[in-house]
Amino acid sequence: MDFDHSERAQHLMANLQRFMQDKVIPAESVYYEQLVHSNDWREWKVPPVMEELKAEAKKAGLWNLFLPDENYGAGLDNRDYAPLAEIMGRSFIAPEVFNCAAPDTGNAEVLYQYGSEGQKKQWLEPLLDGEIRSGFAMTEPAVASSDATNMEATCEVDGDEVVINGQKWWTSGAGDPRCKFLIFMGVTDPEADRHHRHSMVLVPMDAPGLKIIRMLPVFGHLDEPHGHAEIVFDNVRVPASNFIAGPGKGFEVAQGRLGPGRIHHCMRAIGAAEYALERLCQRALGRGAFGKPLANLGGNRDVIANCRMAIDQARLLTLKAAWALDKHGTFGAITDVSAIKVIAPNVLQMVVDAAVQIHGGEGVADPQLSRLMGMARVLRLADGPDEVHRGLVARLELGKYKPAR
Amino acid sequence: MDFDHSERAQHLMANLQRFMQDKVIPAESVYYEQLVHSNDWREWKVPPVMEELKAEAKKAGLWNLFLPDENYGAGLDNRDYAPLAEIMGRSFIAPEVFNCAAPDTGNAEVLYQYGSEGQKKQWLEPLLDGEIRSGFAMTEPAVASSDATNMEATCEVDGDEVVINGQKWWTSGAGDPRCKFLIFMGVTDPEADRHHRHSMVLVPMDAPGLKIIRMLPVFGHLDEPHGHAEIVFDNVRVPASNFIAGPGKGFEVAQGRLGPGRIHHCMRAIGAAEYALERLCQRALGRGAFGKPLANLGGNRDVIANCRMAIDQARLLTLKAAWALDKHGTFGAITDVSAIKVIAPNVLQMVVDAAVQIHGGEGVADPQLSRLMGMARVLRLADGPDEVHRGLVARLELGKYKPAR
Amino acid sequence: MDFDHSERAQHLMANLQRFMQDKVIPAESVYYEQLVHSNDWREWKVPPVMEELKAEAKKAGLWNLFLPDENYGAGLDNRDYAPLAEIMGRSFIAPEVFNCAAPDTGNAEVLYQYGSEGQKKQWLEPLLDGEIRSGFAMTEPAVASSDATNMEATCEVDGDEVVINGQKWWTSGAGDPRCKFLIFMGVTDPEADRHHRHSMVLVPMDAPGLKIIRMLPVFGHLDEPHGHAEIVFDNVRVPASNFIAGPGKGFEVAQGRLGPGRIHHCMRAIGAAEYALERLCQRALGRGAFGKPLANLGGNRDVIANCRMAIDQARLLTLKAAWALDKHGTFGAITDVSAIKVIAPNVLQMVVDAAVQIHGGEGVADPQLSRLMGMARVLRLADGPDEVHRGLVARLELGKYKPAR
Amino acid sequence: MDFDHSERAQHLMANLQRFMQDKVIPAESVYYEQLVHSNDWREWKVPPVMEELKAEAKKAGLWNLFLPDENYGAGLDNRDYAPLAEIMGRSFIAPEVFNCAAPDTGNAEVLYQYGSEGQKKQWLEPLLDGEIRSGFAMTEPAVASSDATNMEATCEVDGDEVVINGQKWWTSGAGDPRCKFLIFMGVTDPEADRHHRHSMVLVPMDAPGLKIIRMLPVFGHLDEPHGHAEIVFDNVRVPASNFIAGPGKGFEVAQGRLGPGRIHHCMRAIGAAEYALERLCQRALGRGAFGKPLANLGGNRDVIANCRMAIDQARLLTLKAAWALDKHGTFGAITDVSAIKVIAPNVLQMVVDAAVQIHGGEGVADPQLSRLMGMARVLRLADGPDEVHRGLVARLELGKYKPAR
Repeated sequence: MDFDHSERAQHLMANLQRFMQDKVIPAESVYYEQLVHSNDWREWKVPPVMEELKAEAKKAGLWNLFLPDENYGAGLDNRDYAPLAEIMGRSFIAPEVFNCAAPDTGNAEVLYQYGSEGQKKQWLEPLLDGEIRSGFAMTEPAVASSDATNMEATCEVDGDEVVINGQKWWTSGAGDPRCKFLIFMGVTDPEADRHHRHSMVLVPMDAPGLKIIRMLPVFGHLDEPHGHAEIVFDNVRVPASNFIAGPGKGFEVAQGRLGPGRIHHCMRAIGAAEYALERLCQRALGRGAFGKPLANLGGNRDVIANCRMAIDQARLLTLKAAWALDKHGTFGAITDVSAIKVIAPNVLQMVVDAAVQIHGGEGVADPQLSRLMGMARVLRLADGPDEVHRGLVARLELGKYKPAR
Repeated sequence: MDFDHSERAQHLMANLQRFMQDKVIPAESVYYEQLVHSNDWREWKVPPVMEELKAEAKKAGLWNLFLPDENYGAGLDNRDYAPLAEIMGRSFIAPEVFNCAAPDTGNAEVLYQYGSEGQKKQWLEPLLDGEIRSGFAMTEPAVASSDATNMEATCEVDGDEVVINGQKWWTSGAGDPRCKFLIFMGVTDPEADRHHRHSMVLVPMDAPGLKIIRMLPVFGHLDEPHGHAEIVFDNVRVPASNFIAGPGKGFEVAQGRLGPGRIHHCMRAIGAAEYALERLCQRALGRGAFGKPLANLGGNRDVIANCRMAIDQARLLTLKAAWALDKHGTFGAITDVSAIKVIAPNVLQMVVDAAVQIHGGEGVADPQLSRLMGMARVLRLADGPDEVHRGLVARLELGKYKPAR
Repeated sequence: MDFDHSERAQHLMANLQRFMQDKVIPAESVYYEQLVHSNDWREWKVPPVMEELKAEAKKAGLWNLFLPDENYGAGLDNRDYAPLAEIMGRSFIAPEVFNCAAPDTGNAEVLYQYGSEGQKKQWLEPLLDGEIRSGFAMTEPAVASSDATNMEATCEVDGDEVVINGQKWWTSGAGDPRCKFLIFMGVTDPEADRHHRHSMVLVPMDAPGLKIIRMLPVFGHLDEPHGHAEIVFDNVRVPASNFIAGPGKGFEVAQGRLGPGRIHHCMRAIGAAEYALERLCQRALGRGAFGKPLANLGGNRDVIANCRMAIDQARLLTLKAAWALDKHGTFGAITDVSAIKVIAPNVLQMVVDAAVQIHGGEGVADPQLSRLMGMARVLRLADGPDEVHRGLVARLELGKYKPAR
Repeated sequence: MDFDHSERAQHLMANLQRFMQDKVIPAESVYYEQLVHSNDWREWKVPPVMEELKAEAKKAGLWNLFLPDENYGAGLDNRDYAPLAEIMGRSFIAPEVFNCAAPDTGNAEVLYQYGSEGQKKQWLEPLLDGEIRSGFAMTEPAVASSDATNMEATCEVDGDEVVINGQKWWTSGAGDPRCKFLIFMGVTDPEADRHHRHSMVLVPMDAPGLKIIRMLPVFGHLDEPHGHAEIVFDNVRVPASNFIAGPGKGFEVAQGRLGPGRIHHCMRAIGAAEYALERLCQRALGRGAFGKPLANLGGNRDVIANCRMAIDQARLLTLKAAWALDKHGTFGAITDVSAIKVIAPNVLQMVVDAAVQIHGGEGVADPQLSRLMGMARVLRLADGPDEVHRGLVARLELGKYKPAR
């Protein structure tokens, strides 16, 4: 048992932290100033500073750190990438700087693992070069996505084409002007058995019949320049070669996508929680009332201790999940991955809420804390709500005793 | 002991509910469509539908229900107005419709109780007619407002004038084009004893030297057309007759303003929580996954029961606080008022969070639930953070045993 | 709306408080010294001081306060008795002193409401005189009693006799040497519809075939001299006239018994919580560390405030439930009664746990706090666990929207 | 980073688990049957089965596993012993079977690290042979022990003797007939600086002037045959050679004792929590109501998932604390050790409470669950209450930003 990160991870952590401190954090205010706010997503633009930062990150060797392949990416396994994701989690703009932002990371992993040579050439390479971005179209407005078998959109084979119909939403990133393709998941063969009905298909953003209806607000914000799109697919036709791993392989591909993505999200949430706790402590020491620093008033120290204890525990379980994924694969990490998917967002929500509270009126006006409030809340729903993951943890626990439902 | 509302309250509740159902709720979408969104508050306009609704409410006798005077208002005591405030709490636009919106209500109470005849004529009457609106300038950016003795802004007597200097923020409503005056609270005599240093002064919005610096965002929203202003007072001069109740009476006046205002806020929060629970239940019954309505999945029924129990308890304690205020005055209700100030916003936050959660992705995009998330969060800070009120409840509890600090 | 107790209730409260202070509290140590501890329940004896206190209480007119009939009892309705139950809740021995202890109170209500003249003569009168005590045999070891339809014990008609068979446990009070009869609930006609299968039957403790197997420990304590018995009924025969309200009326009778009993339990729990909070505050002020009273350390004031707020809310909802029961009957109070059945025991557990914590090592050794820990824990299970009552509250809430399951 | 235990630890874990399954668990009922219950601690006897089990454990090489020295003990470091402590935590009698029970373990560590050759010969060796047992006398009834500087008992040098005076309580194990000595901590030089005032002294149980006043109840139980003694030291005289590490070294010695002891306690608590969760799950699957297993009712699966997630997180942080202690020493593990001291007992309390709840009436009568309720509650106070450890975690957190108080 050893809780130290590998030498390579430690080396990258140091570099990344330095780059964050020297380049990313100072650029945050520039980024937000350059950002074009508009209710019309067609007017969105990527702040120029982002492309500058990306170029520097690439030069510094801090690029595609998430991809476990040495040729395509940094060749790190999950346990080594996890602490890097935590560091990136301290800034909303950081993941993109290092080409480690969702949903590109998940899409890249899918293409890397299951894509054909042609698909890699056409989509994976520009994605890994940071030239284009991508989206993932799975969730549907009409049905509870927590139950994947509810999915109603279709991608049916018609000769050497796939015909795509249906409505999706929460396709994050689809509003980005650089977004060039989506990975669409839908039903190909409703008669097949439960785990072979669905497929994943590559769909170019400019495919005829693909229409963005609107960008969904997150607590009233559109998250430009990325956006969360609601999209109608009306007889969209793409070549059958756009199936990823072939028709009917949707669940198999989805399975492999989930573990690492959840670890990334959770580690970033933990990094964000560390940031929020830092803000909390600074405020507790720097502001006074009734003749004392806030840190010495009421239960504020209990709040701080509870935050520290919650974060440290969440981090360890996430790291263990990463290690289990590396060592035992998806099914060996299944309880831990669902557990952290519940824990990390809830810890973040608790810490941010506490940070807002100690800031008083300034807390609800603070832009970073405001973004974190939204992020934390969304993470408790995205990629399976708390309820589904708690249910899975319980099912596996009960399964130790007898084959419970 | 009797838990039934008075006949008059019951009668007004029925009328109000009908008016809400027939007029206010259907007008909500109109209101939000008519609303001008702009980052420049000078461009804000009041949606015309609001003035139409106000005219109808006035005609229906549902006007100034908060004011306990029969001539100026409806002549209801706190316990009778409380259930009406709850009903208004179901809609963000409702309080204004009935001329019962903060901070006008508190300002009107102050003027009604402590204002001179001239002040009443000039400011109270148009306020109660719904012709103008007002603001309250107490909180300051530089110091923790939870400790009122921290206040640094000044309103000094200079001959027959008052000279006002300092910086305030969270002056809600100051961005409304109809806002014509503020009640400003500041230090008049720093040498006086702790409770006679401060004064309240009426300041017209167009007084030279009064400058709005910016509107503060609440989780990124400006809450147009009202806004939460940060204001600089730079040698603002008003006649000494603008003191409310005279110089040095700031604390005395503030004292009387607090109890009813907190009850209004809490009852509205409870009404909002009922709305959120209604949404939660409708979703729980109307949406399914894994072959069952959400209501039958996991711990959702526990969530619903916990919400119901929390709301019902919060309501009763708020009603008791209202009754105690009527019967025993501010000091007879002091524990209860601080208790509900902690409880009601926290209950609201819990219920809204649960309502968002059961709505999944739709929850974070829903405009009403989004507004409620912000409202709940702000209420835990506005008018004294949880911590200050918990501290007061504890101090009074310990005080039963011996004169603890 | 009026939160003051009636004059009669206030008068009795004052008398009761005085009697508690002057007689009951000073007698507690005597009682526990006189108590015979033995693992063999046949050796248990009632401490003589109890009969002396009962005689004094009877003389003082503080007797059978729970019974809403003026001839048999004090003639108080639920809302007037509730604050008296709270006062009694401050001492474990108090309810018996005033002949207001469970399960006698519930049994007396049943006999008063549904008993024949003969049954009243034979069992109710000596019970109300404090000469005998009684038990209630409903819960069964083999099945989850939260679902009453699980019940397996039988009371079948055989000519003019009832033949009773089965096993019961948690028949509290059956170890008391004065316990002379049980009310037994069992299945009479398994073919009848769901609510007419069960009957209640009076069974003398000395009926042949009734055998106490053991006294159940509560966290290792036998609660002498009352005890919680596990009892086998082996062909016990009693006259058919021992049916209460006739065969098949078990559910109807049970229904009426539940509301008031739950209010008594909850109000006593609230009284116990007040006692625990008093202990907590006294310790917080009387003990120091690090140069300060404990009250000024860490989050202790938050703990105190949270206790106060929880108790006050729980009390109000319990009082409202009592009032609703008086005014609208069992079904008009059903949500409130289930809600308080969850809330009050949980509040008590929280407050006692906090009181133990602030006492440090002394807390776990303190006999009163130890008894309260057990009482709180048991109350969350007795008479329906939290889960069942939360479930009922949720079902009723959802039922407002459509006829949910 | 590696979450697998070392090969040696895994080997011992397997052996220990087998021994637990084959020998210890089956002997539990025998142990409790042989146990002599008496309110007079002088009558207590050790159940003979214990000495039989000890002999077998010694033979099986499962002996003194806690001691990191290869000659005196098993030579395991903290991280390797931790999972063994967890396994022992599943049975109350197990730690003693393997000669790994508190307070002997802490006392042995102290003597091993700081004892003279003579002290080792006389006290450590028979202790490690399992021939004698020991106690630790630090906590005092009159002062809050959470603040060690409060300590009032004295051990003053008088020529070549130490004179001991004062009153101690919670000296656990002092009622055991095999208990032959105490380690006493008291003030030697009140004038010395804060960390050099106190000393530790070896005191034979039969020293004249040492008098056991009473055994303290833990929720009414005396925990025979060990007991928690309140002891008066009235001019007890022992040779000055009985000082451990010399006079004034009390804090230094205490420091080193704390880390490992807390890890042992926490890992045992985690093992106990696993046992309780196992009971909970078995009940959830094995008992039904309303036509379903309890596992499928209400929020029971959420309860199970929350328990699993809390236990897994607590275990990882405890293991990390053990690893940090091994690698970086006491001060390198200080935050983690205080954090787990809060977390593990609270997790245990939560899980046991949930296990009791799902067992219904059987839960409060179950002897193992009852003992666990007491153990969990005591652990939140023993060796520093939650509050002190939370305070330390917060102080260290704030200390990262500036030298806070």
